[in-house]
Order: sequence, then structure tokens, then C-alpha cells
Amino acid sequence: MSKLNYQPLGDRVIVSPQQPEQTTKFGIVIPDSAQEKPQSGTVIAVGPGKTSDEGKVIPTTVKEGDSVIYAKYGGTELKVDGSDYLIIKESDILAIKR
Amino acid sequence: MSKLNYQPLGDRVIVSPQQPEQTTKFGIVIPDSAQEKPQSGTVIAVGPGKTSDEGKVIPTTVKEGDSVIYAKYGGTELKVDGSDYLIIKESDILAIKR
Amino acid sequence: MSKLNYQPLGDRVIVSPQQPEQTTKFGIVIPDSAQEKPQSGTVIAVGPGKTSDEGKVIPTTVKEGDSVIYAKYGGTELKVDGSDYLIIKESDILAIKR
Amino acid sequence: MSKLNYQPLGDRVIVSPQQPEQTTKFGIVIPDSAQEKPQSGTVIAVGPGKTSDEGKVIPTTVKEGDSVIYAKYGGTELKVDGSDYLIIKESDILAIKR
Amino acid sequence: MSKLNYQPLGDRVIVSPQQPEQTTKFGIVIPDSAQEKPQSGTVIAVGPGKTSDEGKVIPTTVKEGDSVIYAKYGGTELKVDGSDYLIIKESDILAIKR
Amino acid sequence: MSKLNYQPLGDRVIVSPQQPEQTTKFGIVIPDSAQEKPQSGTVIAVGPGKTSDEGKVIPTTVKEGDSVIYAKYGGTELKVDGSDYLIIKESDILAIKR
Amino acid sequence: MSKLNYQPLGDRVIVSPQQPEQTTKFGIVIPDSAQEKPQSGTVIAVGPGKTSDEGKVIPTTVKEGDSVIYAKYGGTELKVDGSDYLIIKESDILAIKR
Repeated sequence: MSKLNYQPLGDRVIVSPQQPEQTTKFGIVIPDSAQEKPQSGTVIAVGPGKTSDEGKVIPTTVKEGDSVIYAKYGGTELKVDGSDYLIIKESDILAIKR
Repeated sequence: MSKLNYQPLGDRVIVSPQQPEQTTKFGIVIPDSAQEKPQSGTVIAVGPGKTSDEGKVIPTTVKEGDSVIYAKYGGTELKVDGSDYLIIKESDILAIKR
Repeated sequence: MSKLNYQPLGDRVIVSPQQPEQTTKFGIVIPDSAQEKPQSGTVIAVGPGKTSDEGKVIPTTVKEGDSVIYAKYGGTELKVDGSDYLIIKESDILAIKR
Repeated sequence: MSKLNYQPLGDRVIVSPQQPEQTTKFGIVIPDSAQEKPQSGTVIAVGPGKTSDEGKVIPTTVKEGDSVIYAKYGGTELKVDGSDYLIIKESDILAIKR
Repeated sequence: MSKLNYQPLGDRVIVSPQQPEQTTKFGIVIPDSAQEKPQSGTVIAVGPGKTSDEGKVIPTTVKEGDSVIYAKYGGTELKVDGSDYLIIKESDILAIKR
Repeated sequence: MSKLNYQPLGDRVIVSPQQPEQTTKFGIVIPDSAQEKPQSGTVIAVGPGKTSDEGKVIPTTVKEGDSVIYAKYGGTELKVDGSDYLIIKESDILAIKR
Repeated sequence: MSKLNYQPLGDRVIVSPQQPEQTTKFGIVIPDSAQEKPQSGTVIAVGPGKTSDEGKVIPTTVKEGDSVIYAKYGGTELKVDGSDYLIIKESDILAIKR
């Protein structure tokens, strides 16, 4: 996995989405409903954390390399050197795979 | 009940929904209105808790193994190894069966 | 009145709605408008209270056995052993009958 | 004015609306616009006050017997023993008649 | 200007609107757009102030007799003894004429 | 530029809009998109500042005479002695010209 | 890159958008979805920071000269001496290029 030259701001996180063909290989996330569909991916870069109303930075809890599932809704797509990434807020990450 | 390899983030909880045929066997939850329908299930995994605006983690109060009824609205479906799970916020859990 | 095996979470309360034919017997609540209609019932189970943003639990003020009128809007119906109950937030309770 | 057997919760107040024919007698409130129409009435019962996010009760400032004008919007009608009452929030009371 | 027998609650203020024919006499406020139109008037009665979430009263800053311009939107009309008044929130007052 | 006899309340500011023909003379602000169009003007009067929820006044940072660009959306037009002014909130001011 | 004579207020930032033809030269940001499209640019001027509800200024974290990607939505276009700029809030900046 290539190192990205981007530092997310605030509580944003950049994830490298897992490819659909890989989903079957690992056999993990295949939602069967049309509601909100979670996706899986790997955390590539992590922002310092959200700044509270009084200026305190609340550190993010996910780390680079974490395998996560997240709600795609709200994220921003980013293409760098032909690879697709997604910038999401940490609050859009539902769970970490242990 | 199988152990899941997912750790929910924040105040999220993963529940294993009770199957409809089981609902009759235990005779518990059969809503007769079209409004918001509660469902029953078992808590499989629990996040550490919600982080307050000032960075304090408010621990979740439900525990693994709790039998709960919850509002389905807002949850995210997750299929792992052929089983269906639901990721919801603790605030969507209405009551614990004693 | 049967004891329910459910413990509401947060500031939720389970009420046993008063039957319409009983309303006349006690002669209490017959709204004559189509706006928001209050209903009367008895409190069956009470949650520990709402958790503040900083983690403090604000105790509920209604108690088991209280005769209350409440706004039905927002509640979730629950049927247990053939009886109908309603799970509402304490803030949906308008007044306690003394 | 009869004593009501209801204790409002929170910052709710029960008022006995002034009858339209009385409005002329006292010559006070006759709105001439179709916007939000204030009404006059008498405070019958007063809740303890609003609970802040941190659990502090903020006492209500109106008292039983106060003659008030209020915005009807948002209130809940209540009929007890043939009389009509209205349950409103104290914040819906616009002014007290001195 | 007659003394009103009403004490506004919270951060509400009662104003006596300036008549349209007077507007020309003083030559002050003639908005030429259809957006939000300010109006001018005189403050007749002032509430004690807004109560904060923690119960502290924030005093109002306008005073009886102040000549003000205000946004009409949101106010409630009140007719007393044949005169028209408007109950608005202090936050709807845009400026004080010096 | 004439002195206005109005004292804005709270975090409001009165600006004297720059005339369109002057815009070319100074060659500064000609937005070429239909989105939100900034305008330029001069600050004529400044309110004391926004009052926080706990009653603390947060002083405004712009000063009389400042040349500013602002978002017109949300302001209220005011005509005094044949001149047009705009009452806006300080938060609608985007930048100060140095 | 020319020095701008504008000082943004609050947590606003002025960016000089990267031209589309430059995007290919540096080969960085080509979103392939119709959702929210990030853009890249250079920070030209930075406001002092957001003022909290209690009056504390929370300093901005981006600096003049930073190469950033940002969400265009919500910004205000500004043309000065024939050049296009964008005034955005710091919270609209997604990441800094290292």
C-alpha cells in the first residue's frame, strides 16, 4: 500500500476502499439491503482530531493500517496516481476489524 | 452464538437480530401498528462509548449478551459468514429484557 | 397489573395505556380537538434517566405506579403476552394525576 | 375556579382559557391579524421547571392564578369534568397581566 | 403614550409600532425592497431577560421609551383598548435610534 | 460619509454599500458566478457584540470605517434621508480590505 | 503568486484555486464521481480563527502557502485584478499536501 502525501484535517480520515473482488476473497461484508451500505477498507492517513468548541483537540482513535467498515455516505472521493481513496470523518467509521 | 471480529466505534453496538420464527417461540414482541416497530435481539459487541464535546468518553451501559429490544431505524446491516447483524447506536436500544 | 420484564434505557418509560372504555369510567381525558391528543395510562417501568453530554445521569422524576397523561406521538408500541404497552420518553409525559 | 388534580411535569403549565365572550367584557385581546394569535387565560397549575442538560432545575416564573396571554400553538388540549384546559410550555406564555 | 398593564416574559419586548404616516414626518425608515422590511416603533415594556440553560437571567439591553427599528417577522400582535402593539423578542430589534 | 443616528444591537453592523459604478473605479469585486455574490462597502456603525448563552458579551472585531466585503444574504435594507444602508451580522462579513 | 490586500474574518481562508490544466501537470486530483468534488489550491490568506461561544479564539491550523484540497461547496468567489480566488471556511479544507 503506497504512502499518501496528504495529511487530513480535523477528524478526517483517508481510507483505501477494499475492492469488490477482494470482498469475496475475505468473505466479510456483503450487505443485502438497500438501506445504508457499509463498506470495508484500510485507513491510510488520520487527522489530528476534532477541535471542541473551546479549542481542545479530541484525538482520533483509529490508526493507520486499521481495517475498518464505514458508511460511504458523506465521504469525498480522491484519485491520486490512478488509485481511488475516500476522505471520511472518523464518525463515519462503524467498526474496526480485530 | 459466534464471536464477531468487529469492535464497534463510539456508542455503537452490534446486535444479532432475533429471527421472526423465534419471536413466536418466546412470545415477546409483535407490534400491531405501522408506526415504529421495535425488534428484539442479542448484543454481540459494544463500543467504548460516546465521546463528549470536551473529549470525555461516556461508557455504554449495555453489555455483551444482553437481550434487548431496539428501534431498527437508522441501523446498518452487516453480513459476516452468512449471518446477519445490525450495527446500531446504543441510543436506539429501548429496553433490556431482565 | 402484571410486572414487566423490561428495563427501559435512558429517560424512557413504559406505560400501560388506559383503555378507552375506562376513560369514561374515570371521566378524565377526552380531547375534543384534532391537534395533539393526550392519553392517560399508568407507569409500569422507568429508565435510570437521561445521560448528559458530560456523562451525568439526570434521574427520571416519574415513578412506577404514577397515573400520567402523555403525548402519544413518538412512542413505540410493545405487545407482551397479549397486552399492549408503550415505550415513551419521560419528556412526552405532560402531567401526573395527583 | 376549580382545583385540578394534575401536576404538570418540567416547564409545563396548565391554563384555563378565557372564554371568547369574556374577552369583550374585559376588553383585552382581540388580534386583528391572521398571523399567530395570542390568547388570554388563567394559570391553574405550574410544573417545577425545566431541567438543564446538567440536571439543574430552572424554576418556572409564572404562578398559579396569574392572568396571562399565550401563544396557543403547540399546546395540548385537556378536558376534565366538562371543562377545557390547555397544557403549554412556560416559554409559550408571552406576558403576565399586572 | 399609555402605560400597558402587561409584563413580558423572558427576553420579550412590547413595542408600539410607529404609524406609516408618521414615518414620513420623521423621514426615517422606508425600505425599498421586498426582502425583510424593518419597522420603527417605541419600546413600551421589557421582559427581565432570557434565562440561560443553567438558569442565569441575561438582562435585556433595550429600555422603556427606546426608539427602535425591528424585524416584524415572528412577532405577535396585541390589541389593547383599541391600540395595536407587537410582542417581539429582543433579538428581533435591529438597532436603537440615538 | 454622514454619521448615522442608529446604534445596532448585538453583533449587528450597519454598512454603506459601495455603488456599482465605484466597483469599477476601485476595480475590486466583480464576482463571475451566480452562487453567493459578495459585495463591498464601508462599516458605518457597529453593535457591542454577541451575548453568549451565559451572558458574556463577545466584542465585535470590525470597526467603523473598515472597508469590507460581505455576503448580502440575510441583511436588512434601511433607507435614511435618501441613502441606502444594510444591517448585517458581523458573521456575514467575509474579509476586511487592508 | 500576488499578495492579496484582504484579511479574512473568523475561520475563513482565501485560496487561489489550481487551474485545471495544472491538475494534469501535477497529476493529483481528478475526481471520477459526481458526488462532492474536491479541488486543490494554495492558501493565500488566513483568518485569526473561529470565536467560541464564550469568546475564545480557536486559531486556524492552515498557513499561508499551504497546498490544500477542499470542498468547493459553500465558498464565495472573489475576483481581484483579473484573478479568481475563493473564500472558504477552514472546515471546508479536507487535507494538506505534504
